[in-house]
Amino acid sequence: MTSEHLTNHQIRLASRPVGLPTAANWQTTTEPVAGPAAGGVLLKTLALSLDPAMRGWMNEGKSYIPPVALGEVMRAGGVGRVIASEHPGFGVGDVVSAGFGVQQYLSLAPSDFKRAGLVKIDLGLGTLTQWLNVLGMPGMTGYFGLMDVGQPKAGETLVVSGAAGAVGQTVGQVAKIRGCRVVGIAGGQAKCDWVVKELGFDACIDYKAGPSAVRDGLKAHCPSGVDIYFDNVGGDILDTVLTRINRGARIVICGAISQYNNTTPVQGPKNYLSLLVNRARMEGIVVFDYADRYHLAVAEMAGYLKDGRMSSREDVVSGLENFPAALTRLFTGENFGKLVLQVAAD
Amino acid sequence: MTSEHLTNHQIRLASRPVGLPTAANWQTTTEPVAGPAAGGVLLKTLALSLDPAMRGWMNEGKSYIPPVALGEVMRAGGVGRVIASEHPGFGVGDVVSAGFGVQQYLSLAPSDFKRAGLVKIDLGLGTLTQWLNVLGMPGMTGYFGLMDVGQPKAGETLVVSGAAGAVGQTVGQVAKIRGCRVVGIAGGQAKCDWVVKELGFDACIDYKAGPSAVRDGLKAHCPSGVDIYFDNVGGDILDTVLTRINRGARIVICGAISQYNNTTPVQGPKNYLSLLVNRARMEGIVVFDYADRYHLAVAEMAGYLKDGRMSSREDVVSGLENFPAALTRLFTGENFGKLVLQVAAD
Repeated sequence: MTSEHLTNHQIRLASRPVGLPTAANWQTTTEPVAGPAAGGVLLKTLALSLDPAMRGWMNEGKSYIPPVALGEVMRAGGVGRVIASEHPGFGVGDVVSAGFGVQQYLSLAPSDFKRAGLVKIDLGLGTLTQWLNVLGMPGMTGYFGLMDVGQPKAGETLVVSGAAGAVGQTVGQVAKIRGCRVVGIAGGQAKCDWVVKELGFDACIDYKAGPSAVRDGLKAHCPSGVDIYFDNVGGDILDTVLTRINRGARIVICGAISQYNNTTPVQGPKNYLSLLVNRARMEGIVVFDYADRYHLAVAEMAGYLKDGRMSSREDVVSGLENFPAALTRLFTGENFGKLVLQVAAD
Repeated sequence: MTSEHLTNHQIRLASRPVGLPTAANWQTTTEPVAGPAAGGVLLKTLALSLDPAMRGWMNEGKSYIPPVALGEVMRAGGVGRVIASEHPGFGVGDVVSAGFGVQQYLSLAPSDFKRAGLVKIDLGLGTLTQWLNVLGMPGMTGYFGLMDVGQPKAGETLVVSGAAGAVGQTVGQVAKIRGCRVVGIAGGQAKCDWVVKELGFDACIDYKAGPSAVRDGLKAHCPSGVDIYFDNVGGDILDTVLTRINRGARIVICGAISQYNNTTPVQGPKNYLSLLVNRARMEGIVVFDYADRYHLAVAEMAGYLKDGRMSSREDVVSGLENFPAALTRLFTGENFGKLVLQVAAD
């Protein structure tokens, strides 16, 4: 196959956002698609994962990975198809996961495979969008954050915020399978109903139901206190959960979506001294640290998807050009399930 | 010995403070001293430990131990002498450690021994005031907070705030013995000089030297970042240290003296997401959890005091009646070394 007639539409970071990203922060470019480098592969993007962490990558300054540079194609993980290959390990038609970036095509030289996280994926284990959800980065984040930092024990009570999101789905369902009482926190009754009825959580608190909804909900649904809190949101919800933790509780700091678009300083947890009173722990997690064990979590959770003990929900938006608008839905909470940008049908 | 002519002067909590405790929060009472109960002991207070944690005990509400009730003798740990005994395990003249309370005498029935933490102490291992410092509660807090939560490894950099205080002295010296680079944070040049010259810390930052003193000091004295931060103060200093932590850092939350007299909410650490970026941990410690291992830490540190690898400094105020004024010196930082209230000479 030749690629000379293909055009690669791309979305690049044009400027660093102040607060919520706007159209002005993005720049659309087109490039001709070059064939694969010697020994390399040419990939076609099928779907991209849209994640809260992307907001952090748009900021200047040191973090767990370097920021996206101005003018660079926006970083995004995704799944796609090999459309040309000069590498014996990949054949045309293979489905792969990689750091595609927000663009239609990606050419990788063999020296880039590792950096891009290029791996073949097996659609027998899960659907394409599940590979961006439970079997992808959010699933790995939830699984290892829960297991390694949360350390769930049967009979303990786990609370997870962003319960209907990609990480939250995974955390709550795996914790249920491990024998925990699981209480979600999500925005809106529809998400709460789904989390309880479809995912089997014991309860779910709608934080939008009123100013004391979280406090009252925790009191009602966590009568024995909170042993593990998996935090995706930060802010007031983190502070409220801190008032209900048990002795020896573990708080997994996975994210703080409520704070990512702040134009004022991050709201620190004013109740952090509850960690002292309760000999509790607050610990951060970055998924990349577990890369050498992803395959184990994938195998385990693919089994749960197959036997019906886990299910998943993805919220799919179509069209590369809709990336900017789709991304903001994460921060307004409009997405219902793991947010996926479908770039091509196949 | 009979006790019928002895009078027990006591200081009781009269009202709960708002902000810094004042004279109006205290009430002085006198009671005749009763002889020991059947099988019990009568103790004479020699010296009391004045600690930042006392401020927390004066507040209403759930904590790691119940608050001091209004009208109750103020809680305080101390050392004293057995002046009458009907218990075979204690003889007149024995020196003991116990929860004396802020009073001159304490009568304990055998059923109270455990609750009061009554144990004989050996003045061959350390002086009376060292038994309230390195060999007492602050020493145990520092030792176990460092070893169990901080988990120091040779070559790591440890920062400790309240470095010249009772807990800070212990933490820094034990960490030095464990092979860490140790940087203190203390208020004033005199304390900093003492910590470096007498205790052998690698450096000490005077947080009162200017608004950027801590930031600049950490940059200068922790060129490889911070692996362990033992926090006694909270507030801005905690937030500044959070910007300098290394991957996998441990932050031991021992106290937050900067916040104890707040009349506004506690200042939460706005840089707590540094825990995420650095896969770091913030964990609370309460000394009582380690009671069954105190003897091991006492034996180890008594050895260091003897062979000169550790030293200690106590700031001794005399007279039970000076308790209220002495306590406030903790919060203004006027004390230099572990603050002790000497109640009787022997």
